[in-house]
Amino acid sequence: MTNSLLNNDNVSVFIIGAGPGDPGLLTLKAAECLKIADVVVYDRLVSDEILAMVNPNAEKIFAGKAARDHFMPQDEINQTLVDLARLDKTVVRLKGGDPFIFGRGSEEAMFLAEHDIDFEIVPGITASAGCGAYAGIPLTHRGYVTGVRFVTGHCQAGQHLDLNWKSLADPKTTLVIYMGLINIQKISDELIKAGLPADTPAAGIERGTTPDQRTITTTLENLPQCIERAELKAPSLLIIGKVVELSKTIAWHTHAHECMLDDIEDNASNNG
Amino acid sequence: MTNSLLNNDNVSVFIIGAGPGDPGLLTLKAAECLKIADVVVYDRLVSDEILAMVNPNAEKIFAGKAARDHFMPQDEINQTLVDLARLDKTVVRLKGGDPFIFGRGSEEAMFLAEHDIDFEIVPGITASAGCGAYAGIPLTHRGYVTGVRFVTGHCQAGQHLDLNWKSLADPKTTLVIYMGLINIQKISDELIKAGLPADTPAAGIERGTTPDQRTITTTLENLPQCIERAELKAPSLLIIGKVVELSKTIAWHTHAHECMLDDIEDNASNNG
Repeated sequence: MTNSLLNNDNVSVFIIGAGPGDPGLLTLKAAECLKIADVVVYDRLVSDEILAMVNPNAEKIFAGKAARDHFMPQDEINQTLVDLARLDKTVVRLKGGDPFIFGRGSEEAMFLAEHDIDFEIVPGITASAGCGAYAGIPLTHRGYVTGVRFVTGHCQAGQHLDLNWKSLADPKTTLVIYMGLINIQKISDELIKAGLPADTPAAGIERGTTPDQRTITTTLENLPQCIERAELKAPSLLIIGKVVELSKTIAWHTHAHECMLDDIEDNASNNG
Repeated sequence: MTNSLLNNDNVSVFIIGAGPGDPGLLTLKAAECLKIADVVVYDRLVSDEILAMVNPNAEKIFAGKAARDHFMPQDEINQTLVDLARLDKTVVRLKGGDPFIFGRGSEEAMFLAEHDIDFEIVPGITASAGCGAYAGIPLTHRGYVTGVRFVTGHCQAGQHLDLNWKSLADPKTTLVIYMGLINIQKISDELIKAGLPADTPAAGIERGTTPDQRTITTTLENLPQCIERAELKAPSLLIIGKVVELSKTIAWHTHAHECMLDDIEDNASNNG
């Protein structure tokens, strides 16, 4: 392994983030890791274009992870990484987005550390940064918000979504929700109940950064209905906050579809 | 401009994120932009290694931005981008971190849009993701936190830091503070007053992702003294939350220095 970007020959496992979808958003270091890999253990959210960048001689192992299905349980993924490393393979653990932001990369790193396997973490563009950039929605904007916050709207099967709604309902913070489609009605209701204005701008971005990206913009109150109507599917990211307004001016990749409540009401009465 | 990663020939300005420092964390798309640029307008936080990747024939314009000094005022940067684009140049606006996370990229994009200049936004690895990965501090970890939050500890000259401390003091959210060194005493005091336990783990990471990275770990209460003692300088990132504990096990790039209050007290009495 002789490469200027990778300077530690003893590393057995690289836990790398593939970013949100556009292969151009892979980092130089991650691209090098794919080239030197003997084995790549990859997740469901990694795009075909990125898999095509893997060293053709490398073995590819699908660890397929969906929001509600873990095809390979986390324990088994952890053990696989250790087993492969012990065979003196250069192992790349390839995850969608960033390994340390809702990516469970730290669980894998803990397990490797406990088994004395040398590893590196290569951060990736997280969905928020990718979707925000490609939808023309800045996560922060002077005079609009003082910061940004990422939460997951997904919870373990059988558990209910337990978030601090009062703390989340801060109009001066952009709120980004990963894996929020399933619980969107509850999320919208709870945020409004906790004091976030019902007319706070909100967006849903499906397959962000890919050629199939779709963005809808609406209000917090209407977001659940608009998502249902537009039939947004995973992977989708939700952004709630005043910054969503800016997409009207600075969207460049694809323009947002503005979903209006009136349309929905008209539709409802047509159906009724 | 013929490149698989850049498929719109009409783009005049690319607003790109250079990431936190390690040139390996540049995205493939950003690296391509640097190669095709006629002019690069770059910020202070962009490393020399990354500037060395710019097309050698390109003009480089320093827009030098420090936390407290804006060498080129924002209005002038905006106008420069428009002027250069109107000369039919391919302009790259190169910013540290991510353009849409405390990067003012949206202000530049707004100005370009208002002047009918075509642009693209290329997201970068934001400091949180870079420093978290390289310091072995996951921004989220199952069972520890439900999310992560980024705020800036910097405020306009003459203004005081006006944050919603009650909302910020959430032990189930990792809190990341950009540009927080100057106001660290106030940040620590206010968070504790708002209910965040004084012994919440906290870290300061200086020059994260570079070979000079330094990490100190301590508690929220002791963070101001530890930062002063270690003489952390900008650019530094602060991370507050239970996830900081994990760096003991999974730090791989450089190990954290654990700053103990006892040492400080001993030192204080030695000095007194």
